[in-house]
Amino acid sequence: MIHNFNAGPSILPREVFEEASRAVLNFNGTGLSILEFGHRTPLFESVMQEAIQLVRELMNLDDSKEVLFLHGGASTQFFQVPMNLLDDGATAAYLDCGIWGTKAIKEAKHFGQVDVVASSKDRNYTYIPKGYHIPGNASYFHYTTNNTVEGTEMHAIPDSPVPLVADMSSDILSRVMDFNRFSLIYAGAQKNIGAAGVNLVVVDRQILGKTGRKIPSMMDYRQHIESGSMLNTPPVFAVYVCLLTLRWLKNRGGVAAIEKENIAKAELLYRTLDEIPHFRPTVEKEDRSRMNVVFVMDEPSLEQEFLAACKNAGMVGVKGHRSVGGFRVSLYNALPLESVVAITDLMKDFAGRH
Amino acid sequence: MIHNFNAGPSILPREVFEEASRAVLNFNGTGLSILEFGHRTPLFESVMQEAIQLVRELMNLDDSKEVLFLHGGASTQFFQVPMNLLDDGATAAYLDCGIWGTKAIKEAKHFGQVDVVASSKDRNYTYIPKGYHIPGNASYFHYTTNNTVEGTEMHAIPDSPVPLVADMSSDILSRVMDFNRFSLIYAGAQKNIGAAGVNLVVVDRQILGKTGRKIPSMMDYRQHIESGSMLNTPPVFAVYVCLLTLRWLKNRGGVAAIEKENIAKAELLYRTLDEIPHFRPTVEKEDRSRMNVVFVMDEPSLEQEFLAACKNAGMVGVKGHRSVGGFRVSLYNALPLESVVAITDLMKDFAGRH
Repeated sequence: MIHNFNAGPSILPREVFEEASRAVLNFNGTGLSILEFGHRTPLFESVMQEAIQLVRELMNLDDSKEVLFLHGGASTQFFQVPMNLLDDGATAAYLDCGIWGTKAIKEAKHFGQVDVVASSKDRNYTYIPKGYHIPGNASYFHYTTNNTVEGTEMHAIPDSPVPLVADMSSDILSRVMDFNRFSLIYAGAQKNIGAAGVNLVVVDRQILGKTGRKIPSMMDYRQHIESGSMLNTPPVFAVYVCLLTLRWLKNRGGVAAIEKENIAKAELLYRTLDEIPHFRPTVEKEDRSRMNVVFVMDEPSLEQEFLAACKNAGMVGVKGHRSVGGFRVSLYNALPLESVVAITDLMKDFAGRH
Repeated sequence: MIHNFNAGPSILPREVFEEASRAVLNFNGTGLSILEFGHRTPLFESVMQEAIQLVRELMNLDDSKEVLFLHGGASTQFFQVPMNLLDDGATAAYLDCGIWGTKAIKEAKHFGQVDVVASSKDRNYTYIPKGYHIPGNASYFHYTTNNTVEGTEMHAIPDSPVPLVADMSSDILSRVMDFNRFSLIYAGAQKNIGAAGVNLVVVDRQILGKTGRKIPSMMDYRQHIESGSMLNTPPVFAVYVCLLTLRWLKNRGGVAAIEKENIAKAELLYRTLDEIPHFRPTVEKEDRSRMNVVFVMDEPSLEQEFLAACKNAGMVGVKGHRSVGGFRVSLYNALPLESVVAITDLMKDFAGRH
């Protein structure tokens, strides 16, 4: 058995792979591959509509929210958000909590002013800043709910006097949140939602159309809303994989049920890291991510040996991001508890032998 | 047997579907699905590099050209092209030959001036304008090589005093062309290249970096070139399907070989349309597309009956675009000659019975 701890693209449910594989040969009994299937057909339109409806249901969204599946990844949203929301000369507030937030800030500066209200760069992004002030005249406040590279997660939604915008790429649908408090949420699909090449965007209609900027059609959320997320040919297969994953999540009991599983997985891994010698989590306890567990070894010379032991045990994706080093074990929705049991057993064994 | 005449997403080779389907379960013997496979791995990097190399080879590109696989569809390129090439206040020349060219013109106007050098709108885009003048001070000249909706194709490359830019979405790799005459070529993949959700872009490095505009990273061709088309997580599966289709094309003999097949398919269909009663192609003979054959019936009341006959015979995608009416039969690279034989036999039979 392979244990897939990849940070993204990452593990999806086995039944999703099986159904997606069948659809590439024969989509829904049509005799056609989903890759050659017209998107302006009742059958594909129902795929898109069901995916949108499942997002509404799983996130418990109110009527002011629109759900879109858009081309690209979160990096596309880094500029699409300010292009739609930040007027020339206006200011947006950003929290700087890691490599991805830093990239979002860089792109926003193409469109207006950016006020970085707080940063955890001083300690290599190993904690989430607290006690910062969000100015009431900012166009919006942007933060990253979970920092995939550094392994921190913001467990509470901040109080904000201005519209909240969040990059939820790596923890969306992993835990219960009041998603209606956000004016705009985006997430690259390739962690908890589906396949790479599509973004989930949830946006409150009321915040749109307030800048004087001319926005290209494909970048204008309003045009995508008007067309039911079918402004041009969507990434058909990637959207279908999202639908299959969303159906799986609903059948598993929805976000509240998966959150319990995610808590159990994360607790087992962090408890093991805290208890055994040699291994050391890198981030502040209160800001630990349940999705991406980052740790190093006290004795760097042991790291290669542990990495080799993981490889021997059929574990992939445990090597840390080059900017942090050490290890990163990702525990997305579809990762089974038994994979966490396997790596914690391996850690205990490894610690016992050294 | 199903005959798939879809205009896009459209038929791809059966062996591509089979290999893509297997990769969704087990990519290249890794035991992992391609949907959960990290893109920053030697194996996926080799997928991207081989796909780029095959494009270079099949299009016979010179060293000044860069090959990129970018998120989105041709509609994304409608604004990305002028964002990179058209300065505020400068003018780009566009040829208006159909619905897609019109959309490209609309998006270019967000960035600078557009000089529409000629249009065939006066006769519902049933021909390609000739004898127009391209101003020497334009930043570039943009045209659509094949008009998917209207069924016209520009068989010669125009002489242009300024850099040539072409939307080749629906006829790329279908015929031999001197691709090196173009400064920028783009094509949504979902016709002759692969699956929806990715664009092929071929760009001459020398035309980039000449505007004063600040370009968001994900829209900046130069940044994609620097990162080897891996600036962010690419649409992994869609790129892989492109690779499989490009391999198939190379094994089939490349562009020159497929062009012969495409000529045979188009000649059979047009000859049948010209010879039998009731059916009438809508476009000028010299501008007929080999990829999308558009026709109507002299007696509109017969159209429903013919459409039903096609459906009975397992033919999909023959209904014309709503803006044109009648029928559209698409003959992309992967469509076998036997499908064209089947529909021409059906037409002859239908004409004989009426």
